[in-house]
Amino acid sequence: MTDRNVERAARVDTASLSDALDKLGITGQCLGIKPLSHSFRMCGRSFTLSYAPAGPGGTVGDFIDDVPKGAVIAIDNRGRPDATVWGDILTLCAHRGKLAGTVIDGACRDTHLALELGYPIYSRTYSMRTGKDRVQLESARTVVSIGGARIDAGDILRGDSDGVVAIPQSREEEVLDLAERIEAVEARIRDAVLAGVRLDEARREQGYHKLQTRTSEEEDGRKRK
Amino acid sequence: MTDRNVERAARVDTASLSDALDKLGITGQCLGIKPLSHSFRMCGRSFTLSYAPAGPGGTVGDFIDDVPKGAVIAIDNRGRPDATVWGDILTLCAHRGKLAGTVIDGACRDTHLALELGYPIYSRTYSMRTGKDRVQLESARTVVSIGGARIDAGDILRGDSDGVVAIPQSREEEVLDLAERIEAVEARIRDAVLAGVRLDEARREQGYHKLQTRTSEEEDGRKRK
Amino acid sequence: MTDRNVERAARVDTASLSDALDKLGITGQCLGIKPLSHSFRMCGRSFTLSYAPAGPGGTVGDFIDDVPKGAVIAIDNRGRPDATVWGDILTLCAHRGKLAGTVIDGACRDTHLALELGYPIYSRTYSMRTGKDRVQLESARTVVSIGGARIDAGDILRGDSDGVVAIPQSREEEVLDLAERIEAVEARIRDAVLAGVRLDEARREQGYHKLQTRTSEEEDGRKRK
Repeated sequence: MTDRNVERAARVDTASLSDALDKLGITGQCLGIKPLSHSFRMCGRSFTLSYAPAGPGGTVGDFIDDVPKGAVIAIDNRGRPDATVWGDILTLCAHRGKLAGTVIDGACRDTHLALELGYPIYSRTYSMRTGKDRVQLESARTVVSIGGARIDAGDILRGDSDGVVAIPQSREEEVLDLAERIEAVEARIRDAVLAGVRLDEARREQGYHKLQTRTSEEEDGRKRK
Repeated sequence: MTDRNVERAARVDTASLSDALDKLGITGQCLGIKPLSHSFRMCGRSFTLSYAPAGPGGTVGDFIDDVPKGAVIAIDNRGRPDATVWGDILTLCAHRGKLAGTVIDGACRDTHLALELGYPIYSRTYSMRTGKDRVQLESARTVVSIGGARIDAGDILRGDSDGVVAIPQSREEEVLDLAERIEAVEARIRDAVLAGVRLDEARREQGYHKLQTRTSEEEDGRKRK
Repeated sequence: MTDRNVERAARVDTASLSDALDKLGITGQCLGIKPLSHSFRMCGRSFTLSYAPAGPGGTVGDFIDDVPKGAVIAIDNRGRPDATVWGDILTLCAHRGKLAGTVIDGACRDTHLALELGYPIYSRTYSMRTGKDRVQLESARTVVSIGGARIDAGDILRGDSDGVVAIPQSREEEVLDLAERIEAVEARIRDAVLAGVRLDEARREQGYHKLQTRTSEEEDGRKRK
């Protein structure tokens, strides 16, 4: 089963998606969440997990076999740097299960295996200290917060060398349409620049400053409502 | 002269050592201390150095020729990001003297040489500003604090792609025994997973959640004392 | 047109330049500003830009075609991590225009292109969120602050694996003379060490602790003035 919008999102970079999100007033950038390697690329629908400080009897959970092929696991551990919520066995399972990648507001461990396998992990930091007995799985498939972005189960998560953006499922068509338009304009500016045109001229010809400025006619239109 | 426990520690990764330290109630993870390159691996006994803000007549010290082959230099500069305590000549001496590596709660410089030679440096950050006339060597071979871990002279320091853990000399056998057990269990889980077993089943079969949970029988035993 | 002092600065590393700046009482180290890749090297005269939070009608500016060949663009965005001020089209223009590199007190985006082209970017961080409509170009060719260093238009900026230092144009000869002397002394110490001399002896022979200590005769001389 192909997912057309995931494929569309995979063809535009996070910068263009971010510009589209900005223009539509959606905060979808996962700020502070970085790839373990600049070579990582990733796109898929989110499988969300939320962690909380551990109480008696809580565990880190056995969710991995329930995650569908192609999904991106999104773990909200509230930015904690002192307790990892992802390690080598999960990387192995995720890689074997053909998941698209993992995004963590917090820390991962066993970085060497993710780098070796080329399995994309995006996180705030890493260490070797386990989250076991420090945090516990609180909920799965609920809304989470990753780097300041709101992510619901099923939202598209796109990652590249710059980090990760989240596209809310309810606004997917709008965001992708606009991101594709932005990417096309940027491509024309790039081509013009490579052909020797000055950047200011190329931008003027392509309406660059207007396209993404919030005080454009569209913005005026929004204000009039 | 071979050091059997250093060899044992070199064969387990920091994640398993960290889990063993956790289970034994020892804080040995050097949090926030990162390898300059994810390809670095390191294991040896610590040669500790403590730095303090510079006073009149203080120097950065000439210790390097006193450090025995195979040792890891551990420098406590209290996390200072604005004054480096390690540079190219020390890297050269350490590499020539077959030291195992350097761990710094603070900053290093001349990162290019360490990367070129493959000499393992773990630190909080790096810059090019010298510590000379900013900090001075306060003491050598005394207890230091690196990333929140207490490190005494002679403790084993093990570093890999995830960072560095410290194993207190007095608890060495216990930590290594347990880390080896943990590594064996994890290896069996990995093998089961690679053979197609679900992770939850593999973990159950190997008693994973029980093995490392602090509220295990061992924990109960400790409480009864 | 060759710029002799830029060529001289390109032949010494940031560590030696930093030591010379220290000795002359100049704060020229851009602390916290890091290369996207440790393989980056850069040297040129600064073209400075200052950004401020966006107001009505402000734009990110069309400056790139005015920057002379060989220059280093220095962008002061007050350390903001949430709004990038450099992206792929600027990287493309800068690379095409044979600029030396870009230094940002803030964030860049489209890191993949800079890494692919080997175009040196030094910044505090990166993400994909644009600065457009968040910040605006406030002034060009004025004094800026980058990582705590004061940088005026035309100052030499030298970058390597450790980061970036700024050499004030009015003190250029002094800084370069001293950095070259320091580099020569360090080279002799390195050679001695490689030939098997102990570091303390090598340093003593070369007057290392004296050369850079602020309480040297030169310092005394300065105090007497």
